Order: sequence, then structure tokens, then C-alpha cells
Amino acid sequence: MTVPPLPRLMFETQVRHALLEDLGRAGDITTDAIIPPTETAKTALVARKAGVVAGLDVALLAFQLVDPTIKVQIEKPDGSRLAKHDAIATISGSVRGILTAERVALNFIGHLSGVASATRNVVDAVAGTKARIICTRKTIPGLRNLQKYAVRVGGGFNHRFGLDDAVLIKDNHIAAAGGIKPAVERARAVIGHLVKIELEVDTLDQLAEALEHGVDAVLLDNMDAPTLRRAVAMVAGRAVTEASGRITRETVPEIAAAGVDLISSGWITHSAPILDLGLDIA
Amino acid sequence: MTVPPLPRLMFETQVRHALLEDLGRAGDITTDAIIPPTETAKTALVARKAGVVAGLDVALLAFQLVDPTIKVQIEKPDGSRLAKHDAIATISGSVRGILTAERVALNFIGHLSGVASATRNVVDAVAGTKARIICTRKTIPGLRNLQKYAVRVGGGFNHRFGLDDAVLIKDNHIAAAGGIKPAVERARAVIGHLVKIELEVDTLDQLAEALEHGVDAVLLDNMDAPTLRRAVAMVAGRAVTEASGRITRETVPEIAAAGVDLISSGWITHSAPILDLGLDIA
Amino acid sequence: MTVPPLPRLMFETQVRHALLEDLGRAGDITTDAIIPPTETAKTALVARKAGVVAGLDVALLAFQLVDPTIKVQIEKPDGSRLAKHDAIATISGSVRGILTAERVALNFIGHLSGVASATRNVVDAVAGTKARIICTRKTIPGLRNLQKYAVRVGGGFNHRFGLDDAVLIKDNHIAAAGGIKPAVERARAVIGHLVKIELEVDTLDQLAEALEHGVDAVLLDNMDAPTLRRAVAMVAGRAVTEASGRITRETVPEIAAAGVDLISSGWITHSAPILDLGLDIA
Amino acid sequence: MTVPPLPRLMFETQVRHALLEDLGRAGDITTDAIIPPTETAKTALVARKAGVVAGLDVALLAFQLVDPTIKVQIEKPDGSRLAKHDAIATISGSVRGILTAERVALNFIGHLSGVASATRNVVDAVAGTKARIICTRKTIPGLRNLQKYAVRVGGGFNHRFGLDDAVLIKDNHIAAAGGIKPAVERARAVIGHLVKIELEVDTLDQLAEALEHGVDAVLLDNMDAPTLRRAVAMVAGRAVTEASGRITRETVPEIAAAGVDLISSGWITHSAPILDLGLDIA
Amino acid sequence: MTVPPLPRLMFETQVRHALLEDLGRAGDITTDAIIPPTETAKTALVARKAGVVAGLDVALLAFQLVDPTIKVQIEKPDGSRLAKHDAIATISGSVRGILTAERVALNFIGHLSGVASATRNVVDAVAGTKARIICTRKTIPGLRNLQKYAVRVGGGFNHRFGLDDAVLIKDNHIAAAGGIKPAVERARAVIGHLVKIELEVDTLDQLAEALEHGVDAVLLDNMDAPTLRRAVAMVAGRAVTEASGRITRETVPEIAAAGVDLISSGWITHSAPILDLGLDIA
Amino acid sequence: MTVPPLPRLMFETQVRHALLEDLGRAGDITTDAIIPPTETAKTALVARKAGVVAGLDVALLAFQLVDPTIKVQIEKPDGSRLAKHDAIATISGSVRGILTAERVALNFIGHLSGVASATRNVVDAVAGTKARIICTRKTIPGLRNLQKYAVRVGGGFNHRFGLDDAVLIKDNHIAAAGGIKPAVERARAVIGHLVKIELEVDTLDQLAEALEHGVDAVLLDNMDAPTLRRAVAMVAGRAVTEASGRITRETVPEIAAAGVDLISSGWITHSAPILDLGLDIA
Repeated sequence: MTVPPLPRLMFETQVRHALLEDLGRAGDITTDAIIPPTETAKTALVARKAGVVAGLDVALLAFQLVDPTIKVQIEKPDGSRLAKHDAIATISGSVRGILTAERVALNFIGHLSGVASATRNVVDAVAGTKARIICTRKTIPGLRNLQKYAVRVGGGFNHRFGLDDAVLIKDNHIAAAGGIKPAVERARAVIGHLVKIELEVDTLDQLAEALEHGVDAVLLDNMDAPTLRRAVAMVAGRAVTEASGRITRETVPEIAAAGVDLISSGWITHSAPILDLGLDIA
Repeated sequence: MTVPPLPRLMFETQVRHALLEDLGRAGDITTDAIIPPTETAKTALVARKAGVVAGLDVALLAFQLVDPTIKVQIEKPDGSRLAKHDAIATISGSVRGILTAERVALNFIGHLSGVASATRNVVDAVAGTKARIICTRKTIPGLRNLQKYAVRVGGGFNHRFGLDDAVLIKDNHIAAAGGIKPAVERARAVIGHLVKIELEVDTLDQLAEALEHGVDAVLLDNMDAPTLRRAVAMVAGRAVTEASGRITRETVPEIAAAGVDLISSGWITHSAPILDLGLDIA
Repeated sequence: MTVPPLPRLMFETQVRHALLEDLGRAGDITTDAIIPPTETAKTALVARKAGVVAGLDVALLAFQLVDPTIKVQIEKPDGSRLAKHDAIATISGSVRGILTAERVALNFIGHLSGVASATRNVVDAVAGTKARIICTRKTIPGLRNLQKYAVRVGGGFNHRFGLDDAVLIKDNHIAAAGGIKPAVERARAVIGHLVKIELEVDTLDQLAEALEHGVDAVLLDNMDAPTLRRAVAMVAGRAVTEASGRITRETVPEIAAAGVDLISSGWITHSAPILDLGLDIA
Repeated sequence: MTVPPLPRLMFETQVRHALLEDLGRAGDITTDAIIPPTETAKTALVARKAGVVAGLDVALLAFQLVDPTIKVQIEKPDGSRLAKHDAIATISGSVRGILTAERVALNFIGHLSGVASATRNVVDAVAGTKARIICTRKTIPGLRNLQKYAVRVGGGFNHRFGLDDAVLIKDNHIAAAGGIKPAVERARAVIGHLVKIELEVDTLDQLAEALEHGVDAVLLDNMDAPTLRRAVAMVAGRAVTEASGRITRETVPEIAAAGVDLISSGWITHSAPILDLGLDIA
Repeated sequence: MTVPPLPRLMFETQVRHALLEDLGRAGDITTDAIIPPTETAKTALVARKAGVVAGLDVALLAFQLVDPTIKVQIEKPDGSRLAKHDAIATISGSVRGILTAERVALNFIGHLSGVASATRNVVDAVAGTKARIICTRKTIPGLRNLQKYAVRVGGGFNHRFGLDDAVLIKDNHIAAAGGIKPAVERARAVIGHLVKIELEVDTLDQLAEALEHGVDAVLLDNMDAPTLRRAVAMVAGRAVTEASGRITRETVPEIAAAGVDLISSGWITHSAPILDLGLDIA
Repeated sequence: MTVPPLPRLMFETQVRHALLEDLGRAGDITTDAIIPPTETAKTALVARKAGVVAGLDVALLAFQLVDPTIKVQIEKPDGSRLAKHDAIATISGSVRGILTAERVALNFIGHLSGVASATRNVVDAVAGTKARIICTRKTIPGLRNLQKYAVRVGGGFNHRFGLDDAVLIKDNHIAAAGGIKPAVERARAVIGHLVKIELEVDTLDQLAEALEHGVDAVLLDNMDAPTLRRAVAMVAGRAVTEASGRITRETVPEIAAAGVDLISSGWITHSAPILDLGLDIA
């Protein structure tokens, strides 16, 4: 099954805001001045580089909010691998509407495809291992739901969506609680039965202690591959293992080979460059 | 004079949305479970890499919206060049509040400092020439005002903020109008007296035609350095010259040396990686 | 540790909306006409029935948004058990402000204390067993975060906050998937590593099948106490057990005695009567 | 004529908020994982208890906002009396959309039907008298317009919608003004010509004084039936009489028999239990 | 007692929107470029024409939202009659903040004082009669609450605030109902006990019929003074009489002299010119 | 080419707010009580005075948001000159919907047509000269985009839309900067290449100084016609000339005859009376 789309109401406000951010108080004064209202065209959304497309529904909503009569035909749905010059969709209708919405549409789909492509790139690098690539809460403010969606489209999985959907105990929590044990116990005492606990450890000693307290997952922070390998051995299936820190396209295969279940990357959401896409008028 | 700050009401909604995006419906369940409400700490916002800081007011608002009693002392105001390990600000008060707001604050300041650092990097590369580095409308949806601010903080200048504050005539407009002349005339006939006209040209022939019609600026798209040099000579001060396309840290000095007034980069807003910052509890 | 408060920004919008809903376009025309602006008073928020208080921060924000100079002193913080006539807080300042905000403040705290009191009532009924009382997604539209908070204040725990923070497979899902096995497998294939799976079963046969597939929790729907007892024995600690359906103050002790881990009640959020509170001017 | 429906724009924001409250940042992860996008079904909205239905438009909007292709056929419009097992509406279309919107739709219609049913129950108890049952401003925050609508659907009438649409002088106003006379005079001096004045009285002496000042209505607070009977006789048609306090299904016939025009109940809005409704997939 | 102020939360959203409408995406680029951040000044809000001031709180909030350290001292509170050159308030603090907020502040207070002044002008013209001047629903979209407040400040009274706070039966309603009688009866059957009924009549025959059905008020539309006089005599105190149509400063004394209770004017809200106010830097 | 329409999303929020402002919490209680839901009618939007129509799309959206089945046929599109009694559009459908939306629709179109008519009136008065009539930032809060649009429809042009789209240096800026020269230099140093600079001058000496610094436009404030004539001669085409202050229908021809390029009027936006329009049921 392909990645299920988000319902439109989950991103409509974001698209409206982005359009108003661009239209300002006077609208597209260039297009309004120059393009006759009756002029129509057929345009192609085209990849200028190879990658993975994500965010078609979001981009297309931009066109439809500016002019509901614009028609769209999708050639490469979200998740498709794109070669340079591939046509992703055909957008036809009023030239005014198309040009007015173009930049916002491209900003969304370029960014989200950038996230999907970056994700896919890392996912491909660990193909053949059991490691899943996951994203973090290091996202662009205002776009978390869409970025997390793009990660899924790129073949990745999602870590927490926010502070409220799982417990993640970090060094500061442990320090303030006076140790791993009280930290875990306090969390376990109050959380719901569908909430899991993950604990960040920096050393194998901490890992040993964490395992005593039965956490669901351990975040193995900034460990090199040999250490990760030993950590995985120590865990021996008693918890999900997540490696984080220093993840790059180059280092990730070695980390995956260490046997961890998950490798988390902030970079795929906070720093992925856009995928270059353009709109060609036929 | 340093770059003037944006009034808080220009970004308060964005910070509130970002916090609610992270807090969800239950808030920071880890911190709430583990950290006693009375626990306080002094923390330092620290650079983990060299760069330029931008967005301190935005980040600090995140802390204050979560807990108005949190105190902040700024060491390196927006625009400061940071060395690795530099302390940017001291944030002290309730540990609960600090940990709850931390990620949103870092997401804002990391991203905006990334934009400022990327900008500064390119600006430095053209030092000694007259070329200004400018940003585009290729921004992250929802963050245009903040990204444009970060560009200024990084030493760059701003191109249009939206479709409504200047005329920029592109190839599609020219094609639909039936030529450069009618396109410019239609625009000039309706715009306000404080609105300028820029025209995109791909060739020197187009440039010659554009100059006949007295536009305020010409966007020289995807020209190599020798062609740019000839274009600048043709323009001879009659219009502002902007080079765009294929701008990288490596190519930009040569482009600047061609004598253009402006070099625009989409990359500094749509693809700048974050500047890595962290919060260290003392 | 007492139940941690929600940060103000998590409910400020709700309080503003509720005030504007009551103030309409002309404000409190009775008070404005009759009460001189300089008149001040000291008032006591008093329980008219016994119960558990919840929502003091929410109610107090209503007063402060109408008049920031109103002073509040809390006598019985959230979670306190109230006897009839107990004073919960003292609110003093402008009579105009107090009377204008009174109804909205009471509507919030009366409702939330009603939820907390209903929860506490059921929690007390299962004291001495291991059963926790949990709430559902059957909440009043617009108040889910606050109602879930009130449940915690009343000694209960929270089930899912929304459709997105855990998998709960119900009969319709099983039917559409063609069985328990494919349903569980499809879910497991895509969810994040901190997301748990609960499965609803109506019969012990279904339970047996569910246990084969290793779900984290089972929702034992509408089973009588003897059946629940057999279900708990079958589960034998391999999953968390949740009983739901037909839960009342009268039936809940028997259900708890069956040995389930959790008993979920929609009634404590969708149908709890308010706790009667009033504001007495001294 | 049946109760006129509210225009959709009067509740669309509430439905959108409720859906987003449930969908969170990831949407319906269970349904998305398990149900194929092409699966369709026909479902029936069915009463699980007897009562009066209210809020169909609101509930149906929830389905349509999640998936505009979902089709609805109404069998029992708002105001219909329902027997257990009655089918209220048929909802057909995408199973994904139906399951995703189901809980929000049921939360609205269950709550509003609960209000309508509670109202109808009291209205029926006073059948044959002239007494009308009216609601108060003791409503659930954020739902006042919808609850007031549900009261009308249940056969009740509406008291004030907010602080701004009529004058209601209570004991605190009288005390601050220094008596009934100055309170009424101050109000009359400033209100619009379409604004009525009601005055709350606790004793027959106060009532006598109120009648001297020509108020439009008197709120007879917490009086027993014999006192109410004497009050009605004293009023002798010179003002509308409203009884309030201690209203239950048991006491209300006696109160109505005392001859009052109106009986107000906070309970029907602040504490009405939901009407149990469910969605059965055919 | 002076006209009670509106609570800030009743207009804060409007002021925020107006500021953002003016600040756009870049803020006050002129002031930011030219005025040093440390520069302070003392300025006087001064009347450039005679009139009545209204909206000080609204205007001052604009300054405070831009810069909370700006200090204000009010010399002429809302409702004061202003002579040309009168100082209304002193605003002191950061020059940047003052200049940035100036136009929005003046737009609010100039408009609202214009409404108050226009109202006062008509009110003065009927001094010595019993006629009250009232406004209508013909208001500027988005400003109804503030315009209605300004009318009160100018000595006028308010007609309906919206479609929902009283019944006003017009010619189209009568036509659709098939006569005055069924129209009034249908309304009376469903409205709340604090809702009044007004009926518009164009002729004395209609008036006679209206009076038979006991409406609370009659709107005598577009009648000349002699006809109004006869209408008032016919009514003989059985209903409130409102004259509307063709109201000007010149005609209003004659209309008032006809003995009507109310004279409504759309002009004072939909067409009142602003009161010219300015900000002088000392 | 006619004035291009604004995309619906640029004013939809304003129309929704205006409708909710009028509908309040109970909706149109008069129409709902009296008009049967099945009643339909055909109505004509008619000019009651001569003028220029503006805002049809805005008004029609009001009808469609209340009832999407209402049909509209436009006879006189925006910009048409209207004679008294001219039919502007036919609106047909549910009487309930039409009457409920009528006032909001008329408030928008009456106001915007008032602005367009006032503008056209002044524009006609300068016909035959080169002077353009332009509006200012003295607009009604919340309506700037729509008022600016109405000015264009009336044949005028737009000055700045906000503080951020051009530099306008006024006396306070000059005073704070210590002269015209530093003020202009500071602005030029930081603005974008598409941002123009205008400078306000009160005397010819100031004008001389301004011209030395090469500003794009000069605002000649409150000069009489002979002085304006000398100013235009001094400028000699080196800057755009704008006259402002004391602009009336009577004085404007003389000012235009002085040879200025632009004449700005605050009155056409802040004080234009509405154009009287009505809805006649056929």
C-alpha cells in the first residue's frame, strides 16, 4: 500500500497562509497587469533533478485555492522516483491563476520532495539491513505534519510527533531526577498504557542500567560503530535500539551494519535542500 | 546601525503555532513526569559550529510563552559571528519550562541562524566587489518574514517580499503579452508610482530590447561570467543588474567580478542547513 | 507529585473564545449599566457540593483576561477534595470585572471539576485493586485537552488523545482487513517504534487470536465479570487488559475484581454532570 | 414549522477544530494502515437508546470535511423522536473517510442529541401547562450556539445568549447599586429600545418592589411551589415569570402547575448526558 | 456615569490585524532605517478639528502592541468634546515605536471619533425633545462592536447589534408571510421571553394593523413630519416609535418635534467622515 | 483591460467575519421565524443613487456563504458607472438565504462602491490633466486591501499598501535623522533594489535639498497652487511629484493644473460616504 494521503483539512490552513504571505495586500500585480484574464495554458510540473516527489496534494491545493477551475492530472504520484526531466503532473487552465499560485506551489512541493529525497537517499544506503531511518522533532516550525509525511513518502518512519506522544528521557531529565531509576519510575507511574518509554544513553554503563528498568527503546547517542555493535549485543532484543548523532550518507551503512533497529536523522527534516522542480508552459 | 528587530507581534503567532505543534494535546509528558516544578537551572545557548546568529527574539519568545518567569541574558545579539562553543545567551529559571520550550526555540534559531550563516558565507565571498547578495521568494512556507529578516542579519538584502510589492516580468509574462514592449507598457500603465519594474532576460538581445523600454532592473538569468560582463557593459548604469542561477560559494566571486549590482540566491532561504546550536545546563 | 498544570498557551485560545461567546458585541450590559467602575469586592469561589476541583488556572485566566488587575489566592489547588461550602479561592478586585467574567469562569471550572469528580468517584470505587480508570476519545468537541487533564486530576489515566497517537484496531478494521492477523500486520509494518497496538475483542476466541499476534493491549468489550476473569487468565500478562462497556459506579468494583489492568469510561468525559460551584461576594 | 437549521458557517470552525483535535499531526494511523483506500461501505447511524436527535448537519459536516465524496441520506431529521435501534441516517462512501470522521461526528451529535433529549424530557413533563422550559448561560465553553440550538430542537426556548442581549439584574447588582430602584433606573437609562430587563428576586417582598419598577420579567429564584403560586398571583400578568433553581424531572410538574410562564434549567445544557448513538457498517 | 469601556479582549484581535495589515512582511522600513533605536520623544495627540473623541483605548493598544514600554497619559477621555488644537493624550517613549504604530492608531481613533462626532451632532440637534438618536446595522464590516460603542460615546443609543438579538419585521417578511398578522404570530411563537418585536410600516394603515398585534416597537419608514405626528398620535404610547429614512442634520429637528421616541440613522456609522486628529512630536 | 479581481482567498476571511458579526449566536431570528424554508425569489441589486460599483465579488460571496445554492447574474460589473435605478445584479434563490445575507452584502458593496464613486468623482475632476488620483494609508482598519481595490476600480491609483513596500520620509524622520541628507542616505543604504524613496517637503527650500539627494518622488505637502507650480518647475522631471493636503472636489482641478503627477487623497478611503444600494424583491 502506498503512503496514505493526509486529509486536506490537515494542511489547508498552511496553504492559505502561504498564499496570503505571497499575495500580500495587492495580489500578483505583474500577472494581473500583463496576462489577459481569458488566456489559458497547459503546463507541466517537471523535475529538474532526480529525486522522490512528495507534496502533490499540497501544491495542487495552492492552484485550486487561487482558481478552482484549474485542472490537474497527476503522472507521478507521491513517492515516485523521478529522473531529471520527468513530468510529474499536468496543470491546465487560466494562465493568471497558474502563474499566481506557481511559487507557493513550488515552495511546498520542492521542500517536501527535498525531505522525501533526502530520506530515500539514506534509506537506500541501508538497504539490506534491518535498520529503519527515522526523523526527529528537529523540524521547520509550522511544517511538522507535512515534513513527517514527506519522510514516510521517502521510505522513512516517524519518531515522536511532539512532546506528548511518547516519553523520551534525556540526560537533563536523568540529572534532574537523580538517576535513571527514579526517572523511569516517575514516568511509568503516570503515563497511559499506550505510551512507550525511550531512554537516551551515552555509554554502555548507562545502557546496562537502562535495561534493568525495562524501557521500550534506547537511544544510543553519538556512539561509533563498534560501540553500537556491543550495545546491540547487550540489548539482545530486550529493547528497540536507536542510533543517533553523526549520521551522514557515508557513515550510515556502517551504523546500520552494527545491527541497530533505527537510525534517526535530524538532517532530513531540518536541513534537506529542496528538490529542484519547475513549471513549464507548453 | 544593526539590523532592526521585528516587532514581536510580527512573529508571535508563528511561535505560538510552533509550540502548540510540539505540545500537542498533553504537553511535555516526559518533563512533567520527571522534573519537580520547583527545580531551577541556568543554561547556556551555545554554538556547536561557527556561524552567524539570527532569531534570538523569536527563540526567546518560545521560552517566555511557556513560562513568563524565565530570564534571559543575551551575550551575542543577532548578527554576531559565532565561533564553535561560543555562548549566545544565558537562559535561567524553571527547568520544566526550559526543557519544554527548548526544541521549538532551537528549531527557530537554528533555522534562522542557518539562513544568516549561509547568507554571510556568500556575502563574504564577494567582499570587495560592489555586488549585493539578495534572497528570492523561494522561501519555506510560513516563514517568509523571518527568513528575509535572517538574510538581512547575514549581511544580505531582500528582493521582493511577495507578488505585490514590485513587478517582475518573466518569460511567461513576455510570451503571453506578445513581447517585451507590450508587457512593460501594460505594467507601467497600472502600477503605483513607488513600484519598480524588473525584467528577466535570457539573452543579450532580450537585454537590448529591455533597455529600450526603460525598466528599473534587469534579471540576467543563467548567464556565464563573460556574458554577464558584456551585459553589464551594455546596461551601462541604465538599470540595476541582477545575476541569478547557478549561484554557489565557488562560482559567486567570478559572477560578482563581472560587475553586476546584485546576485540572487534561492539556496540561502530554501536550502540552507541549520546552524547547530545546543542548550547546555550548567 | 501533583498533576502538572498545562501551560497557559495550551488553553488561552479556548478561554478567549468562551469569553467572546458570552460578551458578544456589546459586553456585559447589565454590569456596565449598574456597577460603578471604582467598586471593588472580595469574593470567594465556594463548593456547593462535595467533589474534586479541577480547572482553577483556566477559570482564573477568564478573570485576568477581563481585568488583569484582579487578584486571586488559591486555597484548594486542583485535585483537592472539596466538602460542601469549602472555599476554593479568593478573587478580589473590580466588581465589574469579576461579575463580567464570572459565568465563563464557572462554566469552565464547574465542567472540569465535574469530570474530575466523576473520575474520582469511579477511581475510589476500585481502590484496592490494580485497575486504573481511563478515559476515551468520547469527549466534548473543543475540550479534549482540558477534559483529559481533569481526568488526571481526578486520579484517572488517559487513553489515546487522538487518532494519531496509538493504534486501536476495532471490529470494522478487522472486517475490512479480512481478519485479525492482516490487520495487526499492516499496522505493525508502518507505525513508529514508540507506537503501541491495542486490539478490540468481543469474544474469548478473538482474544486467543489476538494474543497470537502479540498486540500490546487488548480491549475486552462488553464482557461480563466472569468472562473478564477468564480473559485475564488467558492473557496471563502477555498484554495489558482493558475492560470497556457498561461501566457504572455500581458495576465497576466487580469488573476491577476480575483482574483487568484498565477500565475505560466514556461517561466521565461525555456525560459527567458539572460540580456545582458558586461565587459569593463577601 | 420545524426548527430552522443554523447556516453552516456558524459551526464550520467548531467542526474543523474538533477534527484537528482528533486527527492531531499524523491523522488516523489505524485506519490508514489497515483499510485500503478503495474500500467503500454503507453505514447506518443508529440510536442505541430512545431520545431526540439534534445536530445532524454538524455531524455530517464532519464526514464531508474529511472526505467530500461521502454521501448522506437523512431518515430522521433534527427534532425526530427516536426509539432504540432507529436508523437516523445512512452514510456511505469511503470506509477510510467514514472511520476517520466517525468519533468527531458522534461526539457532536451524541452531545447535542443529549441536550435535546434532556430538554424534551422536561418539556414533556410540563405538557398541558403554559410553562415553557428555557436554558441558561450555564453552557459548555465553545458550544453555546449549538447547545442553544439543541434546546430549541428539544422543544425548549432560549434565555439570553450572552451578557449583551438583555439585562438580567441579580443580587450582586442590586447590592452594588444600593437597591432595586437605582439598579433598574440605571439600566433603563442606557439600554436600547429592544432590550428587556429581568430582575432576580428571592422573596415576595423583593418581588413587590420589583413590580413597582416595571421590569419585563422576574426571575423567582429557589422558591417552593406554594411561594411561586403566590408570586404568580402577585405579578398578575404585569411581568413574565421565570422559576429557577432545584428543577428536576420530578419537581418540575409542580412548579409548572404554580402558573409560572418559564422554568429555566441549567442542567439541560451543562449536565445532560449524551444520547448513545452508533455507526453500524452494513 | 460615563460610557463604560469595552474590555480589551473585545477589540485586541482587530488591532492586531490592523497593525499586521500595515506592517506587512517587512515592518516600517522607513523608520527602521532612519530612526536610532534609542531615540525617545514625547508626543501629543491633538485635535485638528472640533468634535468628540472616541476610541482612545483602541488607539493606545496599537502603540502598546508595537512597543509595550510606550507610556500614555490621557487628557481628554472618550466622550470629551474637543476644540481644535486640544491635546487629547500624551504618548511618550521610543520614537521608532511611536512612528510605527501612529497610522493604525490614528486610523482607529479618527474613524471612531468621526462616528462619535457625527452622532453628537445629530443628538445636539434634537436636544430638548424626547427623541433618542440610534444607529443601525449599516456598519463598516468588521467594526460593528467598535462603531456601536462610538455611537454611545457620542450620546446616541444602539439599535440591534445583529440579526439575532431582536425581531425586526420588514416588508419582505410581511409579504412572504402573507400579512402582518401571521408574521407577528410566527415570530412570537418562537422567540425568547427577552426578545422584543419591532415592525416596519410604510403607511398609517399598516400602522393601525401593527398596533392590533401588539408589537413592542414600530419603525415608521420614510414618513414626513406631519405623517409622523399622526402616527405618534395613533400609537398613543402603545409601542415605541422609531422614525427612519431621510435623516439629516437639517431635517432631524422637525422629525424629533413630531414626538417620536427614536430616530435611526445609518449615516452616522456607514458614512461619517473621520475626525481629523494628528500626532505632534514636541 | 478592466481592473483585475482579487482572488477570493484574499477577502474570504473578511466576509466570514462580517457574517458572523451579524449572525451572532442565534442567526437571523426574524427570517427563520417567518419565512418558510422552501420560499424562493428573484431579487435585483439596484442603485438608489448614481455612482460607480465596486465589490460585487465580495458581496456575492456573502450570499454564497450563507446559502451556496443562491444564483447570481451580474449586469454591471465592477467599474461600471451606475445611474439611479440601474440594476447591478440579479440574485435568486432561497428567500431565507437572501434576506439573511442581505445586510452584510450591502454593507460591503455599499462601502466599496462609495470609495470607488468618490475616487471617480475626483478623477473626473482632473480629466484632461496628467494628474493621477492616489489613495493613502488612511484607511478603515481591516479593509485596506479592499479599499485599495475600490480606488483602482474608481479610476485611481494606489500609494503604499503598508509601511513595508516603499520608503516615505516625513518631517519626523528628517528631524530625528538630523536632516534630509542623512535620512535619505540611511534609507538608501539598507533598502532593496526595487524599493523607491519618497520624501515629504513643506517648502521649496526643502524641495531643493531633496532633489540634490536623488529621491524618486517628492510629496509636496499642503502647498497652494502657485507654489505647486513653482515646485513642479523646480523638479523638472527629476522626481515624481505628489501633491497632498486640502484636496477637495473644488480645489483639485487647480492643483492638477499646476502640473503635478499625483494628487493623494485620504478622504476617498477614510471618509467616503457609502453608495446607496438596495435589494428589491421582484
